[in-house]
This record gives sequence, C-alpha cells and structure tokens, in this order.
Amino acid sequence: MEIPESAQKLEVMHLTKVDAGVQLSCQMDDEDVVYGLGEQMRGMNKRGFTYVSDALDDAVHTEDRHSLYGSHNFLILSRKTQPSFGVFVDDPGRVAFDVGETKLNQMVITAGPDCTVYFIEGESLKDIAKQFRRLIGRSYIAPKWAFGYQQSRWGYVNESDVREVVRRHQEQGILLDAVYLDIDYMDNYKDFTVDADKFPDFPGFVNEMKDQGVHLVPIIDAGVKIEEGYPIYEEGVAGGYFCKDEDGEDFVGAVWPGKVHFPDVLNSKARQWFGGKYRWLMEQGIDGFWNDMNEPAIFYSEKNMQKVMDELLALKGKNIDLHGFFHMRDILLGLSNNPEDYKSFYHDMDGVKIRHDKVHNIYGYNMTKAAAEAFDEIAPDKRTLLFSRSSYIGMHRYGGIWTGDNSSWWSHLLLSVQQMPALNMCGILYVGSDIGGFGSDTTEDLLLRWLQFGVFTPLMRNHATLGTRQQEVYQFENVEDFRNMIRIRYGLLPYIYSEYMKAALDDELYFRPLSFDYPEDDHAAKVEDQVMVGESIMAAPVYTQNATGRYVYLPEDMLLVRMKSMENKTCEPMEKGHHYVDVALNELVFFVKKDHALPLAVLDEKIKSTANMEDVSYEWICHGDGPVEYVLYDDDGISKKYVPQKDWKKVIVDK
Amino acid sequence: MEIPESAQKLEVMHLTKVDAGVQLSCQMDDEDVVYGLGEQMRGMNKRGFTYVSDALDDAVHTEDRHSLYGSHNFLILSRKTQPSFGVFVDDPGRVAFDVGETKLNQMVITAGPDCTVYFIEGESLKDIAKQFRRLIGRSYIAPKWAFGYQQSRWGYVNESDVREVVRRHQEQGILLDAVYLDIDYMDNYKDFTVDADKFPDFPGFVNEMKDQGVHLVPIIDAGVKIEEGYPIYEEGVAGGYFCKDEDGEDFVGAVWPGKVHFPDVLNSKARQWFGGKYRWLMEQGIDGFWNDMNEPAIFYSEKNMQKVMDELLALKGKNIDLHGFFHMRDILLGLSNNPEDYKSFYHDMDGVKIRHDKVHNIYGYNMTKAAAEAFDEIAPDKRTLLFSRSSYIGMHRYGGIWTGDNSSWWSHLLLSVQQMPALNMCGILYVGSDIGGFGSDTTEDLLLRWLQFGVFTPLMRNHATLGTRQQEVYQFENVEDFRNMIRIRYGLLPYIYSEYMKAALDDELYFRPLSFDYPEDDHAAKVEDQVMVGESIMAAPVYTQNATGRYVYLPEDMLLVRMKSMENKTCEPMEKGHHYVDVALNELVFFVKKDHALPLAVLDEKIKSTANMEDVSYEWICHGDGPVEYVLYDDDGISKKYVPQKDWKKVIVDK
Repeated sequence: MEIPESAQKLEVMHLTKVDAGVQLSCQMDDEDVVYGLGEQMRGMNKRGFTYVSDALDDAVHTEDRHSLYGSHNFLILSRKTQPSFGVFVDDPGRVAFDVGETKLNQMVITAGPDCTVYFIEGESLKDIAKQFRRLIGRSYIAPKWAFGYQQSRWGYVNESDVREVVRRHQEQGILLDAVYLDIDYMDNYKDFTVDADKFPDFPGFVNEMKDQGVHLVPIIDAGVKIEEGYPIYEEGVAGGYFCKDEDGEDFVGAVWPGKVHFPDVLNSKARQWFGGKYRWLMEQGIDGFWNDMNEPAIFYSEKNMQKVMDELLALKGKNIDLHGFFHMRDILLGLSNNPEDYKSFYHDMDGVKIRHDKVHNIYGYNMTKAAAEAFDEIAPDKRTLLFSRSSYIGMHRYGGIWTGDNSSWWSHLLLSVQQMPALNMCGILYVGSDIGGFGSDTTEDLLLRWLQFGVFTPLMRNHATLGTRQQEVYQFENVEDFRNMIRIRYGLLPYIYSEYMKAALDDELYFRPLSFDYPEDDHAAKVEDQVMVGESIMAAPVYTQNATGRYVYLPEDMLLVRMKSMENKTCEPMEKGHHYVDVALNELVFFVKKDHALPLAVLDEKIKSTANMEDVSYEWICHGDGPVEYVLYDDDGISKKYVPQKDWKKVIVDK
Repeated sequence: MEIPESAQKLEVMHLTKVDAGVQLSCQMDDEDVVYGLGEQMRGMNKRGFTYVSDALDDAVHTEDRHSLYGSHNFLILSRKTQPSFGVFVDDPGRVAFDVGETKLNQMVITAGPDCTVYFIEGESLKDIAKQFRRLIGRSYIAPKWAFGYQQSRWGYVNESDVREVVRRHQEQGILLDAVYLDIDYMDNYKDFTVDADKFPDFPGFVNEMKDQGVHLVPIIDAGVKIEEGYPIYEEGVAGGYFCKDEDGEDFVGAVWPGKVHFPDVLNSKARQWFGGKYRWLMEQGIDGFWNDMNEPAIFYSEKNMQKVMDELLALKGKNIDLHGFFHMRDILLGLSNNPEDYKSFYHDMDGVKIRHDKVHNIYGYNMTKAAAEAFDEIAPDKRTLLFSRSSYIGMHRYGGIWTGDNSSWWSHLLLSVQQMPALNMCGILYVGSDIGGFGSDTTEDLLLRWLQFGVFTPLMRNHATLGTRQQEVYQFENVEDFRNMIRIRYGLLPYIYSEYMKAALDDELYFRPLSFDYPEDDHAAKVEDQVMVGESIMAAPVYTQNATGRYVYLPEDMLLVRMKSMENKTCEPMEKGHHYVDVALNELVFFVKKDHALPLAVLDEKIKSTANMEDVSYEWICHGDGPVEYVLYDDDGISKKYVPQKDWKKVIVDK
C-alpha cells in the first residue's frame, strides 16, 4: 500500500506504513478516555492495554487476554481539550490496538495494508456513536419472547432432561421463556440433525414446550461432520461449498463431531446453501438459534495432527529430556486454533480466492448472515432469535451475540457490565453474558448478584458448561430470591423492550457509560462500574463477594429504587454525589434519572412467560418535580413491522 | 480414627467421621466473617469458596483456584452474637475448607484421620490471633537490608546482566538493596553450584556488589540433579538422603535440571546434610536465599512419563479421533504435579516410613527449616535472609515467603493486599508479592500502583519471569515517579522496621483487617481493600487501572498523608466515614490513626541503600490533639540480639 505524502499526517492520527500494513497513532492527554472495541477484556476505558482483533476460542478470560471471540474495530477517543472522534478500522484480518500499553499516552493501531479507516467526528460522544451506527446499519431486533428469562446448560441431553428443567422452574413459580439445546441434541454433533433416541418426536416436543411458553433454542456449530451418507456433508462436497486447502481439497479440521469441513460462508452460494439448512429445524417449530464455534474454532487440523504425531512417534526409545517434554506439551497444546492452520485454507469469495487468515474475523459474521438471509426467505415477516459467538462490525444487522465462554468469577460479572456499552457502540444490542458464569463452579451469591445485573441485559440467559455445579436457580437454598429477581425482569420488560426498540430503530445506545449522558461531569468519566440502561435507569450492580453494599456515584439527583420483589419496592430520592448504598443479597437496587419515568408491568399469577403478557397493565416509577413524559414502545413482539416513530406512545406520568 | 461419643458435638463445631478422615462443621450467621487461611485466593473475608491445602505449583492464579503454594490451616470465625474463635487443623496432608460455598451459611472442614485440631478462644480477634501466634512460636526476623528495595527477574544470567541492573538503578538515583539470582546463575540448574563462565569470580563479584550496597540473593531449588560426578548428587545417594520410591530406589522426578532426586528433608540427617550445603555459598559472601520449587513441583516423574510415552506410541498408525486428541492432551498436561506421583514416593521420618502425599504440605517447610537450622550453625549470631515458595504453619519461625508466581494483573495487586493480613495471622510476617506481577506483561501504571502498596510490605521485590516485558523501574517513561516511591519506602523504613520488629517480638500482626482495630464498627468488617499497617497507618491503595482516586472508609477521624516524594508531602485531617479520595498516579496516599505518629527517615543524597542509613535522623508525622507517644524500635539490623521490650524507645511527638 502506498500512502500519499499528503495523507501521512491526518488531522487526528498519524498514518505510517509498516511491515504488517499500516499504523495509525496519536497522543492522548492524561484525561482522555478511550471507549469501544466491543467484546474485549478490561474496563470501559480501554486505556492501558493492547487489544487484538483475532477471533479466538479460548475459555480462560484472564485480564491479560488480548483476543476474545469478536472483532469490533471501532473506538472513540474522548478528549477534553480537543474534539473527540471515532475511528473504525475495517479490516477482516488481524488488527492490534495498543491503547497506551507501551507508552501511557500513546495509541497505536496496526492493521493490514488493505484496511479502510473511517474517522467520525461529532457533537458529542453520543453523536459520534450514533453516526457510526448510521454508517453500519440498523441493529438486529429479537422477538419479544427472547427478552424473557432463558435457561441453558451443556448437559441437557434429551427430552426428559429438558422437561425436568421446565417442570422445576414451573414448580417453583419461576418465569421462563426458553431452554437451550447445546451440542448433545444432535446426532453425533451433526448440524441440522436431531438425535431420534433422545428426541423421538422432535416437532411434537417443540410444540409441547411452546404450549408451556417455552421456546427451544438449538445450537448450530460451524463445522460439518465428514460422514458418508450424511446429506449436509454430501451436498457440501458435491456443491463445492466447503473451504479448500492449498491443493483445492476440502480442508479438514476437527471439532466436536470429529473431522469436519467448514462451509465457505464467504461465498454467496455456499452461504445460501448453508443458511437454507436452518429451514428443516424451523419447520419443526424452532424459532431461535445460537451459532457457535464459528471463529471458526479448530481443535486440530488433520495435517497438523499428522505432523505432531510424527514428531511424537520419533521420540520412541529416546530419553525424553526437559526440552523434549516442553516441546511435546507445546506442540500438542499448539494444535488448537493454530495460526498456521488458519493460513492453510481458502475461501472463494464469489470468484476471488482468499486465504482464511486474511478474513478470519468475518467467518462467524458470515455464518450468521447465512442464517439471517435464509430466515428472510423462510419466515420473512417473523423475527427469529439469532445470536452468535464470533462476530464482526456489521453482523449486528443479522443477530446478537453472547459474550462467550466466561467463568463463574466475580470479575466476569463486572466485565460483563463493562462490555455492554462497548458492544452497543458497535451496534450489537441483543447481548448478554452467561449469567452465573459458564466455566467453573458458581455460588448462590454470585448467581444472584449476576441476575441483578442480568435483569437489564436484553439476552438474559443462565448458562453453564458440562461438569460444573448445577446452576439452574432452583438448585439453591433461597429459591425465593431468584424467583423474585426473575419476576422483576418481567416487571421491567415493558421498559427494557421499549428502550431496546428505541435504541435499535433510532440507532441509539441502550447501554451507555455515564459520561455519554453527563459529558460535563469529570467524575462520570471515571466510573467503571455503573452503566446507563435506556433513557431512565442507571444500574450499579454489586459485583464483589460478601459485599452488602457498594459505593455509587450520582452525576445528578436520582431516585434510588430498591426491590426485593415486584411487591416489595421502595423509592428514595438521593442527591448528586458519592454515596455508600446498602444492597442486601436479595435486593435489586437501581437509580432513576431526574425527570424520567419507567413503566413496570403489573404481573398477575397466571403469567408464566412473555406469552401471557400481552394485556398487562402498567404501574410507573417516576422521578420528577412535576409530570414526566415517557415514550412507550410496544408491538406484537414477533412481526417485522415495527411501529414508526411518529406513532410511539407518549405517556405523561405524575407521581 | 474413633471419635468418642462425648466429643462428637464440640461447643463450636460438629465433628463427624467421614471416609477421608474427619469433618468439622458449623453454621455461620449472615454477618459472620471468616479470616485467615494464609496464602489463598479471594478476599480477606474467606466466605463463599472452598480452599484446599494442597501445595501446588501452578502459575495461573484465577479466582477459582483452590490451592496455591502454601498450606495455612488456621482461620478465625468472627461472630457477632456468639464468641469468636480460631481453629487450627494441624494436618500435613490435604485439608479442605468449604467456607459457605456449598451452602452460604455452613462451614465444613475436611481433614485426614490423624489431624490435630486446636480451638482458640479469646477476648478479641487480635487476642485470638495472638494466642495462636504464641502457640506456634516466634516469627522469623530478616536482616534490615532485606527491608530495602529489591530487584529480581528470571533472565539475569551473568555478571554483566547484574552489573547493568545495578548500574541503571544507580544512574537513575534509585535506591536498591538487593538483586536476585534466578535459576540461570547455576551450572545446569545444579543446586549449590555457580556457573563459572557466567560468574568467573563469584566471591569477588558478591563483594563488588556488596560494596555498592547490593546483596545478591540466589535461588535454591528443591530437586537435586542426577549427574555422575556432581558431588551433591553423589553424597545424597551415598548417604541415602533422597526420597525413595515403592521399591526403595531413589525417586526420580524432572524439574529444571532435568531428572532429579528430592532430598528427604523430613529426615533429620538428610535435612542436616542438605542445609549444610548452603555454607558453600555463604562462604562466598552470600547472606540471603529464596527456596523455590519446594511443593515440591514435579514437571513429570520418570515412571509416569514412560507410561504416557507408551500410550502415545500405541497410537501409531491409528486414526486419532477427538477422544484420542483430548486424551493425549490430558495425559500430557496431567504429567505435571500429578497426584499419583505424590503417592509414589516416601519419606523416612527418622525411622518412620511415610508416603509423601500424607505429608505433602510440609515439604517446603522442611526444606526451609534445613537451611535455617544450618544458618544457626554457620552464622549463629547473624540474620540471614530466607524465604520460601511453599510453606506450612510453623515455617514462619525459619523464614518468610513470597506469594509465588502471580501475574501482572490488577486483580493480583488487590489480592496481595488481601493476602497480607491472612498470612500475618499464620505467623508469616516477612512477606510480599512480586511487585508488578511475575507472569504476563506489566504496564507502567500497574507497576507504579503496585509499588504504592509495596512500600508497606516487608519484602518489597520487583520480580518477573522470562519472556515478559522488562519491568525494572528504569524501563519506563516517568522514572522519577518510581524513584520517588522507592525513596519514600526508605523514608518509611524506620516505621516499617519498628512495626515489623514489634510484631515479631510480641506476636502481633503487622498487617490487620480493619475490624481487628475497630471491632465495634460494622462497616469496618466489610472493607476488603484497605489494611492496617503497623500501629499508626491505614493503607488504601489504588488497584484499578485508569483510576485517579478511590473510595476510602475511615473508621475514625484520620490524617490523610499525600506524598509525591519525600520532599513533596501534605497532611490533611479527615473525618470518620466514607470519602472519595483523589490519588494521582504518582502519589502515595495513606492514613494515620488518631493519637498516633510515625517516624520518617531524613534521607540525604549520599544514601544509596540501607547500608548508608545507620545514622539517619527522623522527621515525624503526627496525628493528635496533643503530644503523641510512639515506640521506636531500632537495632543494628543484622545481629540476632534483639532489643528487649523494656528498652524499646518511647518518643513523645508533638505536631
């Protein structure tokens, strides 16, 4: 890439050519804050670390991890003495953001030679974010039922497992809208199959569940099992729909099903073909999917495994020394998600052959696009739930994400709070973390505290992996506390849905750092553990173990709302400033902005899920000296005809 | 073990027999707090997790880790409505403490059948801790120079590396008392050797450094390299000093030197023999050691490696499926610190043959005891610096510890604050964490914030592993900030040393949770990120990135001390209660209790290390309405004749 002399010094960042491609750099003042980068580790303010867009399936999310599952190359440099700006680096390959790690006050972005860089100026942080969102297109809108409480676990294997989960929620009066099917529902992990032994009448079972208000949401993995007689495999081979190796042979990786080929979802025909396969499940009543393993994760490639085995076998009879031991360990551990493997297969982008590593970060995006494009044909008027593990800027038009395989760590509860606004800036509105933590054993208090933030995330799903402590909420001593928190979610649903829809339809942020709402407040920019949720609420969850309260900063006078249940609720005005707020383990505490209101659904006993909530009436929480206006959005929750802005319902609320 | 009927219900805990041995259990009230357990993960209040005493070398200290390097089976249950008590489970094997993980309000301790359990009642938390300390004996006292600033890194290989480190500190005016020699100083990692190519005149070099005020502190690892002609190996074999396998052969493990035998430090003759080996280094001028890899860490055992290799080789020609892949990975990863290996070798405890796993947790303890007992002979009147990675209750009489292989994570800075009082309760006073973090890349701000807590830890050592970012303080842009912080440490030295000595000589806690000083203050028991340091100071370090301040709780009126340097210092009285306190990145902030004072050394320019500090004069920070008394302890810092309590110097300080 040649950079013209005149362009080498842009107004806001220096552009230089480096071996890897290009480098963009700028100085930051001490007070500057960097927001964005979507699904990444660390704080809302991204300063002090290097973030690398390089989609990676690795479930140990320590604070020194440079890459997660998604690649969201958009950030905003919020500056005090100069205009703030946003920068989007459009590059489907590896991009690194050194945000003051090497030098405290220097940001250096390194991208490939063919990247496109967008600079976005605006009147405010909100405006910059909005302009970026306008650029990248409208966010995906999930069906309303997908805003209900959802239960998942790797380990629900068959009908009776699922029935038991649903029964136990109902028995305890816990509202529930969906149960997830992880990889075990399939016949030997083959995409678009259902194991007939485990689910002898799958459509019947789907309907049985739906009659109880419960949607079943199956997982779809990226890799297609290599197995003679398996139609998807055979069609893929026949159609030339799979990624190819150097020799033009279908590339072989190994994932859950064992050896697989990867659909070339960057090719429009392959994408259409793969997307069309979702139809079979939809025809059986399925109306929601989660796309997984689509970085794509590769446990090992056939070629690399052969090399490793050859190396191991060559050690036969030799005295293994320390060097040999570490080498063995390294090559075996290095098999998974190996960068060399990602350089060893190719896409046919409608005629252009491109090596996978150059476009690695848009694989999951295109798998999800494949599904979404198919849904437009299969169910054109209906919303289908869809979210993905891997993602890239732009995928937000087709589905949401979850934040991947987190752990039952208190630090991951805080992390999820910090990730939400960054993801919203990148257009990803339908999002949540695995509540209670996916890996590792949760505890009763962690799950309950996590739910107290989860009541605000559009995707509110409790999910855990095989072998960890059972973490359905009925597994714990004080089930009542969990029942109440989940019930409060349904009480908040009119607000959450309203605010989500406004954010989606008007390119706004549902979750915002405090400084987006209070740009003049220097302290607001320092707050890392509170977040604005919709137009009225500031959330300030408790995220440390054994805490019975926390410090909260109010950037203006606010109303403290304390809820032990929908029935047990108090409100208390509090003054702008720093406060220590008691929050018992079984209490939800949040704050309402001045001159704002929010609706709560009045829930009667017959309500079991969102399916029964069509005709709810509202009560209101209102914080104003006089009447306050709230714009309430509602619709049927399922059709793609959204209420146009001029018809959004304005409600005048008086205390 | 038979438990008499009458003993099955003790006053404070229920005792029951289980398969593994015995279980002690009790109910906790919501407000109860559990302190102690020494070197463990998570908060000062240990509730909500299961801690396992099972010494383990694993450098990834995530919050779900159940075991670290030390085993400190002492805890205090602090109760509001009933008397608090301490419990010490003396069992050198595996002990598990479920402190409300399974059930929020239940504590269950599981130990082996031969454990001895001590219950300790007392008038207060301080009193319970003190009684326990009286029981276990007086804490180790380090030489005064070991309270200076110390620099370490795995990767200083030879004389010129060390000279360079010292030179660059001096060039930048950074005070320095010691540089560490990690495993590379040895000839092929052989204990009690020095590589003559790297250090052609070791005693000369030791003296050269000492002339500059710098002590060299070499590492000693547990495993002795198997190598014909290596005297330590040959003497060990000849004397029968090594641990034996089932067949009575010397057990073979592999660690850094490759194949090794492990000295049977539980045998008094072997201990005497191994300890005597330190003499050779001491005769060359060495006066400090750190004992490492003494859990003992085992990368693999010869037998287990053979088994694994056989399994791998049996796969030859077979089609490796997913199961095979995971199995290969598991067996290879499972080689290190394998529980079966720990069951496969034996100690000769002066005539009693005992399987290692039964006494696993006292191996490091006894290696350190070996050294300390030898020092008593080699240098009976002089203090020698000694600390260990693995430890057990009682080892505190022989040396200190460092908190092992932490990471450059902000969460580990907070963890180190939380670990300190717990370790003090177990008698371990000479302690510190690897400042800046051992694993992973540090950042300038993390190192600086960590130093701001490190100024208070008796062991103040910057240490990092091979391959990470260079983290000597002169590597960063704002060296002045680091120079100032380290200089402040030397300014605080009279106080730190005084308080350390008082804690050691009078069985007190140098670090205390706030509730130990303020038992009537309910909020003090909730504070997890502040700690009392000696009698006058409350530390409240900043431990989150990009923060320019933090919330601080003052349990009484205190004096805020703000120091950018020894010269730039302000004091400000603050009222009891909650405060948000600004703390710039280059500022140390701490608090002084009411009616307390502390001395600061007046440092002139000629001071390069503690070696030049003999005749310092003092200035005082004082917080009282009238004159305040401070008891100043001082001595020559090196002899083992400590000043008796009646001669401790009382100073009356007036503002």
